[in-house]
Amino acid sequence: MKLSNYYLPTLKEAPKDADTLSAKLMIRAGLIRKVASGLYEWLPLGLKVLKKVETIVREEMNRAGACEVWLPLVQPKELWEESGRWTYYGKELLRFADRKEAEFCFAPTAEEVMTDLVKKDTTSYKQLPFCLYQFGTKFRDEIRPRFGVMRAREFYMKDAYSFAANDADANDWYQKMYDAYQRIFKRCGFEFKAVEADTGAIGGNFSHEFMVLADTGEDAIANCPACGYAANTEKAEIQAPADLAINEADLKPMEKRDTPKAYTIEDVAAMLNVPTSQLIKLLVFTADGKPVVALVRGDHELNEFKFKALLKCNELEKASEEVYTQVTGSFVGFAGAQGLKEKNPSVMIYADNYVKNIVNGVSGGNGKDVHMINVTPRRDIKVDVYADLKMASAGDKCARCGKEFTFTRGIEAGHVFKLGTKYSASMGANFLDENQTSKPMIMGCYGIGISRVVAAAIEQSHDENGIIWPAPLAPFDVALVAIDYASNPEVKKHADAITEQLEAAGLSVLLDDRDERAGIKFKDMDLIGLPHRLVVSSRTVKDGQCEYKKRTEKESVRWNLDEAVKKLLQAAGK
Amino acid sequence: MKLSNYYLPTLKEAPKDADTLSAKLMIRAGLIRKVASGLYEWLPLGLKVLKKVETIVREEMNRAGACEVWLPLVQPKELWEESGRWTYYGKELLRFADRKEAEFCFAPTAEEVMTDLVKKDTTSYKQLPFCLYQFGTKFRDEIRPRFGVMRAREFYMKDAYSFAANDADANDWYQKMYDAYQRIFKRCGFEFKAVEADTGAIGGNFSHEFMVLADTGEDAIANCPACGYAANTEKAEIQAPADLAINEADLKPMEKRDTPKAYTIEDVAAMLNVPTSQLIKLLVFTADGKPVVALVRGDHELNEFKFKALLKCNELEKASEEVYTQVTGSFVGFAGAQGLKEKNPSVMIYADNYVKNIVNGVSGGNGKDVHMINVTPRRDIKVDVYADLKMASAGDKCARCGKEFTFTRGIEAGHVFKLGTKYSASMGANFLDENQTSKPMIMGCYGIGISRVVAAAIEQSHDENGIIWPAPLAPFDVALVAIDYASNPEVKKHADAITEQLEAAGLSVLLDDRDERAGIKFKDMDLIGLPHRLVVSSRTVKDGQCEYKKRTEKESVRWNLDEAVKKLLQAAGK
Repeated sequence: MKLSNYYLPTLKEAPKDADTLSAKLMIRAGLIRKVASGLYEWLPLGLKVLKKVETIVREEMNRAGACEVWLPLVQPKELWEESGRWTYYGKELLRFADRKEAEFCFAPTAEEVMTDLVKKDTTSYKQLPFCLYQFGTKFRDEIRPRFGVMRAREFYMKDAYSFAANDADANDWYQKMYDAYQRIFKRCGFEFKAVEADTGAIGGNFSHEFMVLADTGEDAIANCPACGYAANTEKAEIQAPADLAINEADLKPMEKRDTPKAYTIEDVAAMLNVPTSQLIKLLVFTADGKPVVALVRGDHELNEFKFKALLKCNELEKASEEVYTQVTGSFVGFAGAQGLKEKNPSVMIYADNYVKNIVNGVSGGNGKDVHMINVTPRRDIKVDVYADLKMASAGDKCARCGKEFTFTRGIEAGHVFKLGTKYSASMGANFLDENQTSKPMIMGCYGIGISRVVAAAIEQSHDENGIIWPAPLAPFDVALVAIDYASNPEVKKHADAITEQLEAAGLSVLLDDRDERAGIKFKDMDLIGLPHRLVVSSRTVKDGQCEYKKRTEKESVRWNLDEAVKKLLQAAGK
Repeated sequence: MKLSNYYLPTLKEAPKDADTLSAKLMIRAGLIRKVASGLYEWLPLGLKVLKKVETIVREEMNRAGACEVWLPLVQPKELWEESGRWTYYGKELLRFADRKEAEFCFAPTAEEVMTDLVKKDTTSYKQLPFCLYQFGTKFRDEIRPRFGVMRAREFYMKDAYSFAANDADANDWYQKMYDAYQRIFKRCGFEFKAVEADTGAIGGNFSHEFMVLADTGEDAIANCPACGYAANTEKAEIQAPADLAINEADLKPMEKRDTPKAYTIEDVAAMLNVPTSQLIKLLVFTADGKPVVALVRGDHELNEFKFKALLKCNELEKASEEVYTQVTGSFVGFAGAQGLKEKNPSVMIYADNYVKNIVNGVSGGNGKDVHMINVTPRRDIKVDVYADLKMASAGDKCARCGKEFTFTRGIEAGHVFKLGTKYSASMGANFLDENQTSKPMIMGCYGIGISRVVAAAIEQSHDENGIIWPAPLAPFDVALVAIDYASNPEVKKHADAITEQLEAAGLSVLLDDRDERAGIKFKDMDLIGLPHRLVVSSRTVKDGQCEYKKRTEKESVRWNLDEAVKKLLQAAGK
């Protein structure tokens, strides 16, 4: 492909609203453009990578024995009411009415439509198990779309759904998909890890996330070096610390302290000269509309996923200022739980396990610019439930074996769920077993964010000059930079001949035939990150030579022109 | 592929709401299922055909030099306001608001987003011309979705857009796409015809439709056998008949006649003993909200496309009963235009050219169950404008050369438009020319309804037993029907071996290994319509033979098993 015939607008600078490395590079390298918040256009170079990922995924889905289908994006409300998710899904579900006022949503996932499809034609255990998959656009109306295509609202996904008559077959499909995902991420050329994960809005029994490892990854992963347990920090089960023995004599009486202009945990800790771990953070939520209070240590982060799972609620939201004041009788940011239960017996107070060991700690003082010191929760706060409610962080121990976690970061690129009968039971996707008994099918679902994988590849592999594609995902194998292509017939002759021979041998070549300075051409080719670069220029052609450089290397080497094709095929492993 | 591992639910009967041959066959053959009105799921066999069409189209787009991109389906209102189509597009545009109340639509086409994309990076004539294309889902909220995937609301489309600095380059791209479409429909194995067409909601200067010919086609095509002009009957320009010389003496005075229970044109004609061509049909519309009256002969059909083009209005709708009564002073169905202008001078009366030659005709009598006879429009009706307002039909003559049209039917599968500067001017997609003058780019757009092509293939090629795929679109090349596959090891051995050898030679094989009766297997294979059928059964294996039949032939022939692969490859042209 000649670059002069290709639509590849590169940019020197990324736009200001590009908020992560891969988004910046994808825009600069002419892979994508932004239309609106969370909505992107894929340009030819970006689409080529997307299609490479798609091809790998399709091949491995077929190898696993799944059959490809294609479902509509506009899905009727009725199916989402059958599953109960029309109400439950929240505002990420984009809902609308058609011209006849019938209600629909834009598919954020396809459990409902897939279950409905399968129940139309599947009636007997003899037809089970099987697995259907599709590639398609999904829309999730994220409250804060960010990180380019990584957390876009509209994205491209492979979703697969397995249906089985019994647990053994269901687990077998889960394993087949788990194995297929291992093959897929390996074939993409990734460093990755499969970790246990929260089941979120999809629901179900258990799940694994496939994490592409990258320092810039949005997700933190807790790894247990002893038992091998690995989980998203949202999910990682933390051992409760042993109860500290408290010496009653050490407990001091609570006292109020003025803390003017102390707006953050750090401000308060500094002003009162205590570590942030001595502070007790109070948070007010509404769980399905009912206010609840959560307490965590000042240096810890409340894990809303765990809290939601504990409460078994559908919607968990930060309480409004009004509700906060009503529940605590205090200004936002200054409430303390000491005496709260006595004032407001109906409110439930949940605290993270670590809060239990705070002695002579600091809490909000229930007045403006006031904090309370010497708060000891076991004495002063009527906690209803202590539980594991925090994000895993340094120092936390594995709930399974007690060993301290280590942490890495990653980008969730795939997710496998064992759903059980959540959808089949609610939607009546039943089959007759050997004894003619009607039973709901046992389901699994398996997703890969195809568009996200492209961004993850860049987050994992880049340098200060641009993208470094793993070879299996590179949009072209070779950048052939021809300098003086238009003005020097020798350059043109060799560049064209090498391109033709490489393409005939199965490599894809982007021939930079533009009338641009060498510096601009090199910068562009480093930016778009093709694995191999061959430079054909007046300077070396006269010696019968060209220059070769791997994208990962600093220095180029000279090759004889008549050996260039052979050597490049070798370098590309062909 | 073994059928036992494939998701292929065939049905004996089509559901009652399947309203056309291809919809019935697509559902029965397990190609699609219906989710809701105008929304379909594609099953594995159907998707395979869709992907074959996609591949042919992609190859020909690339061959023509177009670059593939991928645009979002959710498109911001702002871009549609820039082009003016947010208001203009009507109810087929599915509009909705996101969680932040920002307004969007589901892409029915992509002129706006594509123009916006191109203007971001294209500033100079040196970057022009080029052509970008995409494959993607589109949604048009049809008032009456019908004919299965042929007139579905959600459908799969290839849309391409060319951008040029001057007319010569714009026409050159139009021609390149026209030629690519010729290659595409030829490669699909179709009988087809390119015809002139109306530009509809897309707008622009001129356009051609690519019609897949089929007796069941929704569109009628008028062909001029003399000058070669061919056009959709919506578009076909009809020569106005020469004015008849009227002998005043023949004109009779108008008289009222009771026509009780005559509800249709045919009823009235029969009751008054005149041909339907003597009747004057009166229709009331609102054009951008303003009522207008149209008259056509009783045996003719008003062409709303022509009427809309004549009125230069954005929205043309049948008037409500209230407006009809207000305008005509009569009940719906009984209004006549005689005396109408005198009663209601502000209403505009348009009549088709043929109405002008009616003498002593029949019109509504402006009262319930009453008609007026001896109406002669030239004497009795104050027509404002006579024009070509009818659908082309038998007897009409070509406006260009006066020769009578012949008619064929077809299915619109592709459409090429020369848009001019309609979108670039309104959306500010400008470039600087050689003299540094800013000018709007000249655009073209080019669509193929990929999902519709699949249905069109079936409408064109089928018999009473099912689909007959043109070889290039067949989901599998060969149906290998193994009878007693599970019970007869010889059958299994030969069926497996032949399958393996055919697949190694590049043919795709659907091996029917199911434990079903031969009759069921044959019926299913005829239904799904693969080009070649090979039967391996106990009956013939014992003689070292198998049976071969082309889908298009009635009788099968016997082949020696050891020659089957060679002969089948020959039959498939490999």
